[in-house]
Amino acid sequence: MTAYESLKKHFELVAGLRNATGLLQHDAELFMPTGSMEDRAHQVEALGTVSHRMMTAPEVAGWLDAAEKDAASLPPADRRNLQLMRRAWVQATALPEEMAAQRALLETKGNEAHIKFRKGEAGWGDVRPFYTEAFDLARTAGEMTKDALGVKTPYDASLAYWNSDIDDADVTKAFDVLEKELTGLIQKAVAQQKKKPAPLPLKGPFPRAQQKELMKRLAGAMGFDFARGRIDVTAGHPASNGTPDDARFTLNIDENDFLSQMVFCVTHEAGHALYDQNLPAAWRHQPVGAAMGMNIHEMCSRIMELHICRSLEFFQYLEKEARDVFNRPDDPALDAKNLQALAYRVQPSLVRLDADEVTYAAHIVLRHRIERDVINNGMSVDDIPAAWNKGMKELLGITPASAQEGCGQDGHWPTYGIGYFPSYTLGDMGAAQVYAAALKAKPEIPSEIAKGNFKPALDWMTDNIYSKGSLLTTDELFTQATGEKLNLKYFLEHLRKRYLGMPPATAAPHPAP
Amino acid sequence: MTAYESLKKHFELVAGLRNATGLLQHDAELFMPTGSMEDRAHQVEALGTVSHRMMTAPEVAGWLDAAEKDAASLPPADRRNLQLMRRAWVQATALPEEMAAQRALLETKGNEAHIKFRKGEAGWGDVRPFYTEAFDLARTAGEMTKDALGVKTPYDASLAYWNSDIDDADVTKAFDVLEKELTGLIQKAVAQQKKKPAPLPLKGPFPRAQQKELMKRLAGAMGFDFARGRIDVTAGHPASNGTPDDARFTLNIDENDFLSQMVFCVTHEAGHALYDQNLPAAWRHQPVGAAMGMNIHEMCSRIMELHICRSLEFFQYLEKEARDVFNRPDDPALDAKNLQALAYRVQPSLVRLDADEVTYAAHIVLRHRIERDVINNGMSVDDIPAAWNKGMKELLGITPASAQEGCGQDGHWPTYGIGYFPSYTLGDMGAAQVYAAALKAKPEIPSEIAKGNFKPALDWMTDNIYSKGSLLTTDELFTQATGEKLNLKYFLEHLRKRYLGMPPATAAPHPAP
Repeated sequence: MTAYESLKKHFELVAGLRNATGLLQHDAELFMPTGSMEDRAHQVEALGTVSHRMMTAPEVAGWLDAAEKDAASLPPADRRNLQLMRRAWVQATALPEEMAAQRALLETKGNEAHIKFRKGEAGWGDVRPFYTEAFDLARTAGEMTKDALGVKTPYDASLAYWNSDIDDADVTKAFDVLEKELTGLIQKAVAQQKKKPAPLPLKGPFPRAQQKELMKRLAGAMGFDFARGRIDVTAGHPASNGTPDDARFTLNIDENDFLSQMVFCVTHEAGHALYDQNLPAAWRHQPVGAAMGMNIHEMCSRIMELHICRSLEFFQYLEKEARDVFNRPDDPALDAKNLQALAYRVQPSLVRLDADEVTYAAHIVLRHRIERDVINNGMSVDDIPAAWNKGMKELLGITPASAQEGCGQDGHWPTYGIGYFPSYTLGDMGAAQVYAAALKAKPEIPSEIAKGNFKPALDWMTDNIYSKGSLLTTDELFTQATGEKLNLKYFLEHLRKRYLGMPPATAAPHPAP
Repeated sequence: MTAYESLKKHFELVAGLRNATGLLQHDAELFMPTGSMEDRAHQVEALGTVSHRMMTAPEVAGWLDAAEKDAASLPPADRRNLQLMRRAWVQATALPEEMAAQRALLETKGNEAHIKFRKGEAGWGDVRPFYTEAFDLARTAGEMTKDALGVKTPYDASLAYWNSDIDDADVTKAFDVLEKELTGLIQKAVAQQKKKPAPLPLKGPFPRAQQKELMKRLAGAMGFDFARGRIDVTAGHPASNGTPDDARFTLNIDENDFLSQMVFCVTHEAGHALYDQNLPAAWRHQPVGAAMGMNIHEMCSRIMELHICRSLEFFQYLEKEARDVFNRPDDPALDAKNLQALAYRVQPSLVRLDADEVTYAAHIVLRHRIERDVINNGMSVDDIPAAWNKGMKELLGITPASAQEGCGQDGHWPTYGIGYFPSYTLGDMGAAQVYAAALKAKPEIPSEIAKGNFKPALDWMTDNIYSKGSLLTTDELFTQATGEKLNLKYFLEHLRKRYLGMPPATAAPHPAP
């Protein structure tokens, strides 16, 4: 066996452990008994420790050195695979085993504390220690890894942990422009909205069983492969998990409103799952066959959720299905245009998960600023609540009454998800840019969606994004799919067009990334 | 850290991986999408390979040698823990990594083939290769491990893989006596039964939801901790899985008959789960804290199923609950004595899972003979169907029409479960012996069960069996709990008393084990 073949076998084994972890985390959310959290944490910690030990095993360094000497003889995809193996090795070896185990433990224990906090069974004081531990660990890990990763700041290392190759200086530049544009855009959108008649509200009940049926039809039409995945209803945070061949996601059902919970959840999470299910099977369990990073993953979900499944044509399809499933042939609230108007409402609100597309970006800009300042600039976790409330006031003009609807609303930070939030808005930027390219290449996409035919959209996405796995760099992916690097222009144009009715502005700023 | 402490940490990590495997196997049975089997097999194989690699890592041998030099300084429980670590190491190091991976793969792929075969989607020719592979692998492994394990034959090594310290020569001696006694006992029991009026059959439907409610009440009364376990309904083979702090089992529901599926399943599987849930928490994740082997595990399940939950007093409790749950205050079929008569029916039948307590032992005696002959005595897998049918004719006087109701009915063999079957009847022997001791110590057990109070039984079992984990040898466990080594006497007396109405026969044969 060559050194490179040994590496491939080794990474395949580690992928098996990681996939097992993904399924155990999914089980913990859905099926696990209430008293088994400590037991589960032990398993996830053991899997994390062993994976880390395998990544940092002395023979891996030897194989990498030997394989890199022979790299010229490898086909391009294998050369890229080898590069990604080196990157993963650098990230893993910079962390001592105890810290890797601590990180794995935070993912379960921090989640448990967060869920209790969200249920009101624990206070901010109970969950805050997990924030402190996660931020301290991320800062230490960032200090230790930044040089080896070739990035500038500890926070860059946090970004690199979750995302494909991006630079926080570029993120900050784009988010600074976005922040300035957003305040005015939100105000104008709200003002324009007020001049129009309010959409008819949905009138429940929309029974759970019927919503499940609609959910199955939607996900099936979108191309979700139920033979290699499953969808479950949860009271917790909707999430995607599992593996490319066992892609699982959860969603919430509100019997009063099928649109803003179930439909928005399915179209978002199926967007994640479609990326996973269509990753290149020939490269299964290898770094080059994996998803690129959460910025690209969120981009895939937002293309489905906000572009393909929030077009008027989608609502025409949804109207037909909803009237049938709920047996409401005459309910005027189910008119496509009314559903669209309901989906397009802009309203500053406290909770990210309930936010519309425009104000959502403001939530992310604030989170990015805070997490960067805690990691890089000496802000204390104790200062987060005040910084949060001040930011919410500046960006959205509202102030949370408690940490539960404020800085403690998301499970990311107490579970080491630091550096993850920017991926949502980087995803939105990419989604607008990539969908514009898809529409240019296949103008029939919307009219086919009106008929419930998602194939043209799915085919283009598979060819240009999904099937690429991690074969390309971030810049290569965007350049090949859209003709230019990732930039802010298309997202701003999209928001202005959809919410202010403005045509593409040629003078719009478009800083990288 | 001392060598022994390093070993403890190492075994704790391996236990985490094994517990993860147990949960993934449970998920594969219940929640996994149909097309994800290959993916799941990859995870289970990876976990098996990595566990095996950890068990056989060079440092383990060094730690064992060093710890054994200092063993005199350890408390007795730790000394026993160290002994069990050495035993596990001997078993693991005798198997090369490829064979360990092959074994792990058989557990999933063999199970998949077996399920297809049972559903009629595949023929005997499709599943037979897994039998051949499993038997060949077990034979090779047995040849390689028998000397290091200090056992006599390759089949002894198969027994040692699943059971606590027992010797096939003793098993064969006991089973030979049992076989001779059984034929007459079955004939007499059937003849006596014919003289009595037939019990009233249960008349369905007993709706699924109500059966689930009864199941919850039963399992709860028996002491099953729902906060650290879960019960699900399956169409497949009922099984226990998971971990001591996340004990899961499955059962079947037949709407025509709540007794012989649901009640018999719950009382059996909860017996397994109670053992797991009450293992010594102070020794969690250490060999000495684990269950002793499947012979003791099956003993625990059979004490609950066949002794505690098949007493007249249990049926008095069940009558009350069943009348309430099914809202049948006057149905005479639900009389305690009628339920008991239904449960005590003896009838030779083709399928082990449907067999009554008496003929069940004949099923096991046959399986033991065949698997031993295939491993030790040159019998070919191709000869199994004929040997099976001949044995069924001799032992029970009936002949299966196909492999589906014959030699292919169980999933054990194609999934490497060779050496497992004897544990059922060894369990029955132990159950009769241990329950006799429990009754002697706490004569109030039956009258409390009539009131739905399982605590006296549970307390005695916890003190004498569950909480012992693997702290004792098989002989020590039985001697401390019952005053004598495991033997056949109590099982034969129990069968004669229950099915022939005979008092304990002082002249009954009682060969070890």
